[in-house]
Amino acid sequence: MLPKTNFTPPFTLTRASHVSLGVTDLEASRDFYRDTIGLVVTEETDNAIYLRGLEESAHHSLVLERSDEAKAHRVGLRVRTDDDIVAAERHFKAAGIEHERVEKHEQGPTLQFTDAVGTHMELTSSMSLVERKMQNFDEFVAGAPQRLDHYQCVTYDVQAATDFWTALGMRISEYTAKDGTDELWGTWMEVKGNTHDLVFTNGRGPRLHHFAYTVPDATALLHAADVAGATGFGQEIDRGPGRHGISNALFLYLRDPDQHRIELFTTHYQFIDLEEVPIRWDVSNPKRAQLWGMPASNRWFFEASEFPGETVNEPLLKANPETLEQFLGVH
Amino acid sequence: MLPKTNFTPPFTLTRASHVSLGVTDLEASRDFYRDTIGLVVTEETDNAIYLRGLEESAHHSLVLERSDEAKAHRVGLRVRTDDDIVAAERHFKAAGIEHERVEKHEQGPTLQFTDAVGTHMELTSSMSLVERKMQNFDEFVAGAPQRLDHYQCVTYDVQAATDFWTALGMRISEYTAKDGTDELWGTWMEVKGNTHDLVFTNGRGPRLHHFAYTVPDATALLHAADVAGATGFGQEIDRGPGRHGISNALFLYLRDPDQHRIELFTTHYQFIDLEEVPIRWDVSNPKRAQLWGMPASNRWFFEASEFPGETVNEPLLKANPETLEQFLGVH
Amino acid sequence: MLPKTNFTPPFTLTRASHVSLGVTDLEASRDFYRDTIGLVVTEETDNAIYLRGLEESAHHSLVLERSDEAKAHRVGLRVRTDDDIVAAERHFKAAGIEHERVEKHEQGPTLQFTDAVGTHMELTSSMSLVERKMQNFDEFVAGAPQRLDHYQCVTYDVQAATDFWTALGMRISEYTAKDGTDELWGTWMEVKGNTHDLVFTNGRGPRLHHFAYTVPDATALLHAADVAGATGFGQEIDRGPGRHGISNALFLYLRDPDQHRIELFTTHYQFIDLEEVPIRWDVSNPKRAQLWGMPASNRWFFEASEFPGETVNEPLLKANPETLEQFLGVH
Amino acid sequence: MLPKTNFTPPFTLTRASHVSLGVTDLEASRDFYRDTIGLVVTEETDNAIYLRGLEESAHHSLVLERSDEAKAHRVGLRVRTDDDIVAAERHFKAAGIEHERVEKHEQGPTLQFTDAVGTHMELTSSMSLVERKMQNFDEFVAGAPQRLDHYQCVTYDVQAATDFWTALGMRISEYTAKDGTDELWGTWMEVKGNTHDLVFTNGRGPRLHHFAYTVPDATALLHAADVAGATGFGQEIDRGPGRHGISNALFLYLRDPDQHRIELFTTHYQFIDLEEVPIRWDVSNPKRAQLWGMPASNRWFFEASEFPGETVNEPLLKANPETLEQFLGVH
Repeated sequence: MLPKTNFTPPFTLTRASHVSLGVTDLEASRDFYRDTIGLVVTEETDNAIYLRGLEESAHHSLVLERSDEAKAHRVGLRVRTDDDIVAAERHFKAAGIEHERVEKHEQGPTLQFTDAVGTHMELTSSMSLVERKMQNFDEFVAGAPQRLDHYQCVTYDVQAATDFWTALGMRISEYTAKDGTDELWGTWMEVKGNTHDLVFTNGRGPRLHHFAYTVPDATALLHAADVAGATGFGQEIDRGPGRHGISNALFLYLRDPDQHRIELFTTHYQFIDLEEVPIRWDVSNPKRAQLWGMPASNRWFFEASEFPGETVNEPLLKANPETLEQFLGVH
Repeated sequence: MLPKTNFTPPFTLTRASHVSLGVTDLEASRDFYRDTIGLVVTEETDNAIYLRGLEESAHHSLVLERSDEAKAHRVGLRVRTDDDIVAAERHFKAAGIEHERVEKHEQGPTLQFTDAVGTHMELTSSMSLVERKMQNFDEFVAGAPQRLDHYQCVTYDVQAATDFWTALGMRISEYTAKDGTDELWGTWMEVKGNTHDLVFTNGRGPRLHHFAYTVPDATALLHAADVAGATGFGQEIDRGPGRHGISNALFLYLRDPDQHRIELFTTHYQFIDLEEVPIRWDVSNPKRAQLWGMPASNRWFFEASEFPGETVNEPLLKANPETLEQFLGVH
Repeated sequence: MLPKTNFTPPFTLTRASHVSLGVTDLEASRDFYRDTIGLVVTEETDNAIYLRGLEESAHHSLVLERSDEAKAHRVGLRVRTDDDIVAAERHFKAAGIEHERVEKHEQGPTLQFTDAVGTHMELTSSMSLVERKMQNFDEFVAGAPQRLDHYQCVTYDVQAATDFWTALGMRISEYTAKDGTDELWGTWMEVKGNTHDLVFTNGRGPRLHHFAYTVPDATALLHAADVAGATGFGQEIDRGPGRHGISNALFLYLRDPDQHRIELFTTHYQFIDLEEVPIRWDVSNPKRAQLWGMPASNRWFFEASEFPGETVNEPLLKANPETLEQFLGVH
Repeated sequence: MLPKTNFTPPFTLTRASHVSLGVTDLEASRDFYRDTIGLVVTEETDNAIYLRGLEESAHHSLVLERSDEAKAHRVGLRVRTDDDIVAAERHFKAAGIEHERVEKHEQGPTLQFTDAVGTHMELTSSMSLVERKMQNFDEFVAGAPQRLDHYQCVTYDVQAATDFWTALGMRISEYTAKDGTDELWGTWMEVKGNTHDLVFTNGRGPRLHHFAYTVPDATALLHAADVAGATGFGQEIDRGPGRHGISNALFLYLRDPDQHRIELFTTHYQFIDLEEVPIRWDVSNPKRAQLWGMPASNRWFFEASEFPGETVNEPLLKANPETLEQFLGVH
């Protein structure tokens, strides 16, 4: 069931912002994201490496954290002002949602919390500014990723996740539902004016399925694949190149040395006007997942990054064995 | 001088939305925009043709209006809700700004007004929804323009135009200023989260210099040029392909049969976070206009579309004869 | 074992030229090749349709022939002059190879024959000239295929096929061989100065695996896939997009309404100098087939078009069941 | 007047092969060709640097030679075998053409000579083989040039140059002639099966106007321009991006630190069949030079690299002052 959307949210989310990952070999992961993906290394400390896309002026959109376990640490969103952090704190306290103010390197006021389905989140209102590298064309590498765009999380309860996030001001652009019902199997939700900042799909969760960076065009996407072939990561492409029906993204998915998954894609369509209605896709419609081409791998469908200390639950909605792809409701 | 930005605007602008042009041969103009540019014709009436980009679900982003004169009619912006139209009306009344409620085909509540420097504007809060064509790849033509993105207007008083629009909530992403001063020669202002919705540059004005549609990638841009060559409009490219320093757009400019100018470009960078500071370019820096390549034509620098009944004034700021390009401060 | 190459061939082959296919629904096949692939229809007769790539000035490179059976009819090559047709006739007669002079629509002197492994071939020395459409950019559709480039045939005896064709002047650019042996599993042979005009790979044969057209670039390749999705042929992509190790082609394979297979690819590298040595790939090396990405479908590995009246033989070389991909030795 | 073509040439030319340039700052030139163009450095010696395109297995296609003067040294072509070098020597001796056998680094038998219009040429039959880098995608830089393709020379006597080279087996694919006459103003001649290996256009000569490398696609061409902007060579683009009518190349021209000119372009069409007739362009037809867009600079029209010790002559054919572009007959 689609939630109501005509209200003022308790604080103002503005965009997907930064993700932190636990990695077991910090240097190997840095090399992968810098040389095979093409991100810019902003800063290296003893236990963390901060990276960003070529057009980004924020200090980091990806943080690699030295760890014994290959887990997803935090999925980060921006709020508009410092006051929104205060408002968020007040809201979570009133709602009984676990949260904590933390200090984070080169970030403004930052609030961590766990959402209704166990996703480990983090809000911040600002970051230190660094140079936009978008006109340093001689430094472009591999896919030349420009900016972090969105996340896809797997959850055992898409309805609960959707209710939680739409109540915070996220708006559904597209969704999947069981044929003939309003049983939600996946929701694509946005705050920044394109199709999504945060996606939830049905499956064993909470887990982070992937985080996604935009690339300039289809040629960059294929060059990223070619570079992956040349640097020894050719078999770590677990889906694509292909075209999603949902959101119309031309996509390529790769696994990093710890099997965290990154998506490279060409940018989505604009989604700003309030008269727009969300696009519905029946779960039985294979075009929602891709408009053409080769199927995704089993790895893509069944593997994702867990959050530390968070129990992974079986999904409430069960897929027909014949439609394994529907199991996750993924795109 | 850069205006203050930390305040709540009287109503909420959301994006550049639609432009209407007076054209002297309706069929010739339709053919140009459909076959050489690649826009979709939504509807044709006796005296007007409504077009949109491939991904747009709004009924029109370009309106061609049969006319004896080749003038720019209206530069259109969206506001968030019907209430914003009411708030705008109240604001303009209080501020003594000429305005009028009008009925427009397939638009919601619509308000026309003239800004502080004589630009003919139009606000609306909604449009009729039509099919997004972005996945009808077999219907893609020429540059396959996806959506209207922004306008550039020429004005005799950039400071006045900037003060007017920033007071309505527009935010400067980049600007040009005379070396060593804060004398504004051009301002790039946005509301939708990328670098601009509305640009003013110094010159004889008010005039509409161009309106701009995004294309999927560099290949589409060059294909548009090739198609223009094949359809007889090869000499109507009056600038590009090239890369602007300001905004980082890869651009191509074409003149339509009435010499109105359309820009095709690949999309800009994201500009959302409040800690961002506008990028300043000295007027003397040629890289603001282009990072490489062949100069723009004189036509590009000196020709633009006037508004009906509006006197064109000489600019308050005069350029050095040696730096004619600076005359308009254009990018 | 690689054949000797230092000799003067009995006649001069110049390039892959034209293929004819038996199709069971002439109009459906025409629509596919014109609208989903983007070939130009040169001429339609009652029982055949003649098509060509956008840059081709020869009357046809693909002939669709109305038929009860979906079979490959003829694989066509060009010879340099009419004298070469006479020389070929003399050579085949002396060598006891079945051959026949035939009249073909808009072709010069034409000779049909069956090669050592049962492939139905046709040689011609000229065709009627028609307009090159390469600058009619406004007529480009889908992948905008520019010209026919090569064929891949499946044969039960790669060594025999290779001996036959190298004796006619073809030169091996790359080949696959069983690890540690000189047992040939696939040979890529050329006459026109790039990597191949004619390929033979190990498998049930004789069959035509595919014929291939060049497209301008990676973007065109992906646009072809997008168009296939839009025209209902999205599931008829049975491999790619991907990058072959052998020949370095960026490829996309589609099946037509009769399940004949066409490859679209970006062009190969130059192969002219006599000091070049053929590149060897061990059959066990998966990179020969693709440098990255998703595996080919079973359809791609096991399905191909038979020739009318020609017995299909089991391959002399048997693959290890674990390495099914090697069964055909295909790329 | 077009020369006869139906004969056996005295020896077999196979392709444009290598160019050597005198450069006044060897390191600056190396940096330009490696970092701004994207060529691979094969070898550096005290007084010369050897470079090649990414797909080339021949040791060099560009040789930078330390020199006091910025002149073009040699325009190199390949012949098929060592025997062809001997045959060429015999032919030039009989014809009274100045020639000399020389030893060149990593080249097989090599013969230097001066053609009928003073162009300094060099023939060789082989080179040392090095690794093809075309699959080292992680090493691709700037335009990622794949291979040397052709040369354009300026001559005071296009007819004489054309007669000389067609007598050696070159074939005209396209040409410009004065309207209504067969007065040749430019000839595009080939041996390798695409539109040209060697071009002569009318003007002050002998001079080398440019040498040209293929790039993978339009995106690579624009990336080269962007990189030139980033590395400080943005103003050294003296023409393009644009599309030639002649040969259909999408082109970009850049000047190196000594003002030698390199063209990057996407590949031409195939030109193999003997029934093809050369395409004629009237000199008055502006589309021969470009199908659309901004005019070339004066630098492009009037500047070119001289050969050491060779007198530059005024052209025999004089252009109308109104049609300066026709002065050189350039494309």
